[in-house]
Amino acid sequence: MSLLLDNQFKELPPDNSIDTKLFLETVSHLPSFFDCLGSKVFTVIKSDINGNIMKIKAVYLKDPERYVTLQHILEAERQDNAAEWPKIGATLALMWLKRGLRFIQILLQSMADGERDENNPNLIRVNVTKAYEQALKKYHGWLVQKIFQTALYAAPYRSNFLKALSKGEEVKEEDCLSNVSQFLVNYTATVDAIYDMYTNLNAELDYTV
Amino acid sequence: MSLLLDNQFKELPPDNSIDTKLFLETVSHLPSFFDCLGSKVFTVIKSDINGNIMKIKAVYLKDPERYVTLQHILEAERQDNAAEWPKIGATLALMWLKRGLRFIQILLQSMADGERDENNPNLIRVNVTKAYEQALKKYHGWLVQKIFQTALYAAPYRSNFLKALSKGEEVKEEDCLSNVSQFLVNYTATVDAIYDMYTNLNAELDYTV
Ligand SMILES: CCCCCCCCCCCCC/C=C/[C@@H](O)[C@H](CO[C@@H]1O[C@H](CO)[C@H](O)[C@H](OS(=O)(=O)O)[C@H]1O)NC(=O)CCCCCCCCCCC
Ligand SMILES: CCCCCCCCCCCCC/C=C/[C@@H](O)[C@H](CO[C@@H]1O[C@H](CO)[C@H](O)[C@H](OS(=O)(=O)O)[C@H]1O)NC(=O)CCCCCCCCCCC
Repeated sequence: MSLLLDNQFKELPPDNSIDTKLFLETVSHLPSFFDCLGSKVFTVIKSDINGNIMKIKAVYLKDPERYVTLQHILEAERQDNAAEWPKIGATLALMWLKRGLRFIQILLQSMADGERDENNPNLIRVNVTKAYEQALKKYHGWLVQKIFQTALYAAPYRSNFLKALSKGEEVKEEDCLSNVSQFLVNYTATVDAIYDMYTNLNAELDYTV
Repeated sequence: MSLLLDNQFKELPPDNSIDTKLFLETVSHLPSFFDCLGSKVFTVIKSDINGNIMKIKAVYLKDPERYVTLQHILEAERQDNAAEWPKIGATLALMWLKRGLRFIQILLQSMADGERDENNPNLIRVNVTKAYEQALKKYHGWLVQKIFQTALYAAPYRSNFLKALSKGEEVKEEDCLSNVSQFLVNYTATVDAIYDMYTNLNAELDYTV
């Protein structure tokens, strides 16, 4: 289960602020998550998420002292681009990135909670579908929704997926899932904090692609 | 019809060699072709093709004197990476790029030839499908083929497509198609020459993605 545990998210400080540098370092390991899904078509999603991370990083590196926390970035971009904000820059990139992060979170949580299709216990379609419906579906037009339904057939078997999360090692399912649960603690808190920030700053958009 | 005619391909010299610099300049305008398809999902394809072009350009810029023609690039890469070639570097990028170029060529040729679905004269699905089957299908596994079938529903109406090719101007259909035919002359010769080069150098692969 090293893929996730090797790069755990840190516990948030009491004010729930997120250190930009630490966040970027930790999150940069996550796109490989999509390699665990097996099929090469998911590299499209990996690139999209990678693009979000690089966009945020590029903004951060322009002035690390100004952008110490993620909230500093949003507030600075709101100030500098009042007319277009929040559909701009790192604010837009993080808006989408957090949805991908939520997708991963719900998928893993659902598996850790033991949710499964009793008729197809080695499939993860119910878990992937739940994650998609809660994290992404409403931001996708009919075409991307249909493409998701098609891509769902390429979702890996549960056993292969867990093995990939364990970097190819044969780990007992219960050990792997307990690692997942451990990873989810700080990860979920971080994703929740980003969502709260978008709500509080009124930075969320609901246009579809 | 400016989108294509503004950036016409040059006539090839008698030996059919393709000047790398000229080719890169001309082809760099083509990814916008996929914007003419209307839906935002086609940006995925646009990025893939853009990636191919940037990869070739990066190789070229490392040593413009060594890579005067496209054939120089393939031969140099074969020499430097005998073990992995041709699944490597600009050779691989151009292998895929030429398939995207062939797709565009067959689509436009089919429209210029007046091929259409008499029951749905304002749809271009027959033309897109023909281009896909001849240029790409055999290199795609079942999943990407299914995604193509889904994406086909997002293909634009003929009239909107022709208008987009004319950069939004209202041009008579016959004028637009005669511009297409004019564009296709040198373009087709160039794409053919690239295919011949891959055959002659035994550089073609037929793995699927
Ligand atoms: C030959 C046949 C060809 C046919 C062509 C069909 C092409 C099919 C393309 C399918 C869509 C792929 C997914 C990508 C979707 C993306 O469009 C969206 C929005 O993407 C955002 O858009 C913004 C502008 O609006 C900025 O550019 C953001 O970029 S910015 O950084 O510049 O600001 C960018 O991330 N991201 C998303 O929806 C995020 C997706 C996250 C992860 C989803 C997990 C799903 C897992 C499924 C498992 C079963
Ligand atoms: C939320 C839901 C999410 C679900 C996720 C689903 C994702 C769907 C993805 C669909 C595939 C999109 C098309 C891209 C396909 C690409 O995979 C292939 C091969 O791409 C090549 O691969 C090589 C390695 O093998 C190198 O990396 C090349 O890169 S290198 O430069 O590094 O060497 C690269 O171009 N290119 C292609 O097949 C080329 C496609 C050309 C144009 C096709 C026109 C079709 C038009 C259709 C109109 C109706």
